[in-house]
Amino acid sequence: MSGTLERSLRDVLGDDGVASSEDRRFHSDATEAEGLTGVPSAVVLPASTQEVETVVRWCYDRDVAIVPRGGGTGFAGGSVPLHGGVVVDLQRMSRVRAFDPLLWRMHVEAGLRTSEVRRLARESGLLFPPDPGAAEQSQIGGNVATNAGGPHAFKYGVTGRWVTGIEAVIAPGEVLATGGAIRKDVAGYDLKSLLVGSEGTLGIITSVWLRLIPAPAASAPVVAVYRSSADGCAAIEAVLGSGIVPAALEFLDAGTLQAAGAAYALPLPPEAGFMVLAEADGSQPETDATVSELRAVLGEHALEVRAPASAADVAALWRWRDGVSLAVEAVRGGKISEDIVVPLDRLDDMIEATLEVARSHRLQACSWGHAGDGNLHSTFLIDPHDQAEVSRAHVAARELYALAAAHGGSISGEHGLGSVKRGHLGVQCNPATLALHRAVKQAFDPKGLMNPGKKL
Amino acid sequence: MSGTLERSLRDVLGDDGVASSEDRRFHSDATEAEGLTGVPSAVVLPASTQEVETVVRWCYDRDVAIVPRGGGTGFAGGSVPLHGGVVVDLQRMSRVRAFDPLLWRMHVEAGLRTSEVRRLARESGLLFPPDPGAAEQSQIGGNVATNAGGPHAFKYGVTGRWVTGIEAVIAPGEVLATGGAIRKDVAGYDLKSLLVGSEGTLGIITSVWLRLIPAPAASAPVVAVYRSSADGCAAIEAVLGSGIVPAALEFLDAGTLQAAGAAYALPLPPEAGFMVLAEADGSQPETDATVSELRAVLGEHALEVRAPASAADVAALWRWRDGVSLAVEAVRGGKISEDIVVPLDRLDDMIEATLEVARSHRLQACSWGHAGDGNLHSTFLIDPHDQAEVSRAHVAARELYALAAAHGGSISGEHGLGSVKRGHLGVQCNPATLALHRAVKQAFDPKGLMNPGKKL
Repeated sequence: MSGTLERSLRDVLGDDGVASSEDRRFHSDATEAEGLTGVPSAVVLPASTQEVETVVRWCYDRDVAIVPRGGGTGFAGGSVPLHGGVVVDLQRMSRVRAFDPLLWRMHVEAGLRTSEVRRLARESGLLFPPDPGAAEQSQIGGNVATNAGGPHAFKYGVTGRWVTGIEAVIAPGEVLATGGAIRKDVAGYDLKSLLVGSEGTLGIITSVWLRLIPAPAASAPVVAVYRSSADGCAAIEAVLGSGIVPAALEFLDAGTLQAAGAAYALPLPPEAGFMVLAEADGSQPETDATVSELRAVLGEHALEVRAPASAADVAALWRWRDGVSLAVEAVRGGKISEDIVVPLDRLDDMIEATLEVARSHRLQACSWGHAGDGNLHSTFLIDPHDQAEVSRAHVAARELYALAAAHGGSISGEHGLGSVKRGHLGVQCNPATLALHRAVKQAFDPKGLMNPGKKL
Repeated sequence: MSGTLERSLRDVLGDDGVASSEDRRFHSDATEAEGLTGVPSAVVLPASTQEVETVVRWCYDRDVAIVPRGGGTGFAGGSVPLHGGVVVDLQRMSRVRAFDPLLWRMHVEAGLRTSEVRRLARESGLLFPPDPGAAEQSQIGGNVATNAGGPHAFKYGVTGRWVTGIEAVIAPGEVLATGGAIRKDVAGYDLKSLLVGSEGTLGIITSVWLRLIPAPAASAPVVAVYRSSADGCAAIEAVLGSGIVPAALEFLDAGTLQAAGAAYALPLPPEAGFMVLAEADGSQPETDATVSELRAVLGEHALEVRAPASAADVAALWRWRDGVSLAVEAVRGGKISEDIVVPLDRLDDMIEATLEVARSHRLQACSWGHAGDGNLHSTFLIDPHDQAEVSRAHVAARELYALAAAHGGSISGEHGLGSVKRGHLGVQCNPATLALHRAVKQAFDPKGLMNPGKKL
């Protein structure tokens, strides 16, 4: 069956357009350590929107499932072909269709790596602000399809805020185009925002129009260390209360510092139980002013506060921050990491609740994330080979979802639901809202073939 | 029939909850001068979400159309009960449900006036950036339902960017709640953005959670006058090309200056054929720096450039800008005013095209608007009693829609389609995209009773 499918698709797309379904690179994403893998019926590598259209029509006519794939860096299993189907990998669609630096905009294909988008912008004095963890590997189409976040979402918003248009292929094989190189549009319904974060379940994003801004001339971090999460969260709220607008406002709790602290360039005070990492940006004088405001406000109840200034120190700091997730995973060989969002004044409650829930299930836990956005990666450290522990961690995760919902929060801020959290949307919305989600899915994908088993 | 309906609704909502359907305040909106009016079957004034739910269920059970109404300041006839139905006026739902200035957020009911939202924010040192024309009369729910813009959308984005959650009543009488006091959420589809700008055709927005930011300490305008729109548009592009980020970047063409210029506080040079009005904001030093950059870049090919500094002069300038629409209308007693969006580099083309189209239909025309966003209010000046002229203006407007679409633009940037432009979405999107709009409408409103005859 799989062989027949591959041969038929080869007839349609040519040899370059089809990869081996046995190639393990297409079987998993960043959830591989959690054991999520699947063997696709076929893997296609379309080189144009028209080829994507052809594939979708081909699959839709034959009731074959379609699993779109970007850089494969997702944390929710969104691109894993858990139940077979045709993986549509966008890597060959990586052209810059238009770049108008003087007009602050870019039109790029979905398979262009996000780091390339950022590099191109930077070389012209511009900034594409979204900076999700895996910018080097992840692709812009995948980032849009998951509405990826990152540390700088606090000031600049998530990926979707920078998208002014989307070209996508929808069922049964049609091109949808919404928005474009324009900055405002209220003529139709906002289908663009509906596709942003839809995780391939409504259509395959083939290109995006992006809005850029002039890059700030300077940026500088401030690091403050606290005895407790209560002290640290109070300091975070004090930043907002003081009217300071940092570019980023991150946190790491005690367990995270324990896991990652050794790799930190400077020794931490022994009582360190919480870290806040803020960044100021803007013109040089503005950045300097914000740094001293941050030092004052964050310093008030801190064990220590530092403002690394040399380029090398700053780069080392952010490299360390980027490595936190891996450091935490290394402690016990595996982790079940969540992506909870709560109103900012519930951040400390949620950090504490993560530890309590862990204790009640005999698990080790820690949290870190995007404090200013109330977005925490509450994480249970596990031995992936200990099935009983893994099961307990999954039960514990579900308790966190319920707690997030009870606080008026969300079970995902930037990773999406994918297959890992699918079916849990109901904890945070009522039956009528849930029914409407299903109706929207039905409107886009009546046969349910677009990335089935994901999100809803 | 109408009397029976009113009596039945009075039984459900009480006397305070029902107004007279003969009250002319509920028959029209800001399109009254274009002759758009309609008599509703009944007018209800619900005081709570539950009452809205009751009304929607009541209407949906009986196949009665529902016409939601905010401040009635729309330019597209969106709240006009053209074919009867029950007008649901939100004015009694004007409570502030929560305001947390230290956390930069607010939860308010739909009927709260936008000026109140802005005032509350300002009193706590915060800014709610959207500033559509009629902030004094318009309500926040209506602003969200039309995704209202305004001059400061250039830097701060349109209304939707500041909405983190929506409570709405959808068919057949259920409460939908999406988002809330949180800043990120990618768990479900972005139903929030779908409701933003949906003009009452998907549901009735009953409350919104808003994000705020610290108010900039200072702001200051720069006014530059040019001989031609070509010179002026080149200057506008030069601002972006220089990496300056103004808070607002507005334009007025020759015809607009002719209509409104007399009310301008200072004499304009006789050759004045185009004006750019920019605003800088930020800290005082930052504002000062941006003002001098703007003076330099805008001044290069200008006839003159000014930076009014006194509070009185600045207030007078913006008051004058706010009065432009009325001044243009006063010239001949009426106007057909559009809300075209084009990529910024097509702005001058579109301004010129507006004049050419007007000439070919023996009409007088002018344009002004939000230059930085490529959003122009292309306007035909008409005598509303001259039916032939009005007809010619409508034909001319349709030609502008086609031109906007040909430039990759939109037929509406901030007013919406309402009844004035309904049925024209097809000029800017393909049949598949249009079909999807209908499917989304169908998913929300299977009986087609929510603001029928509007938008689609």
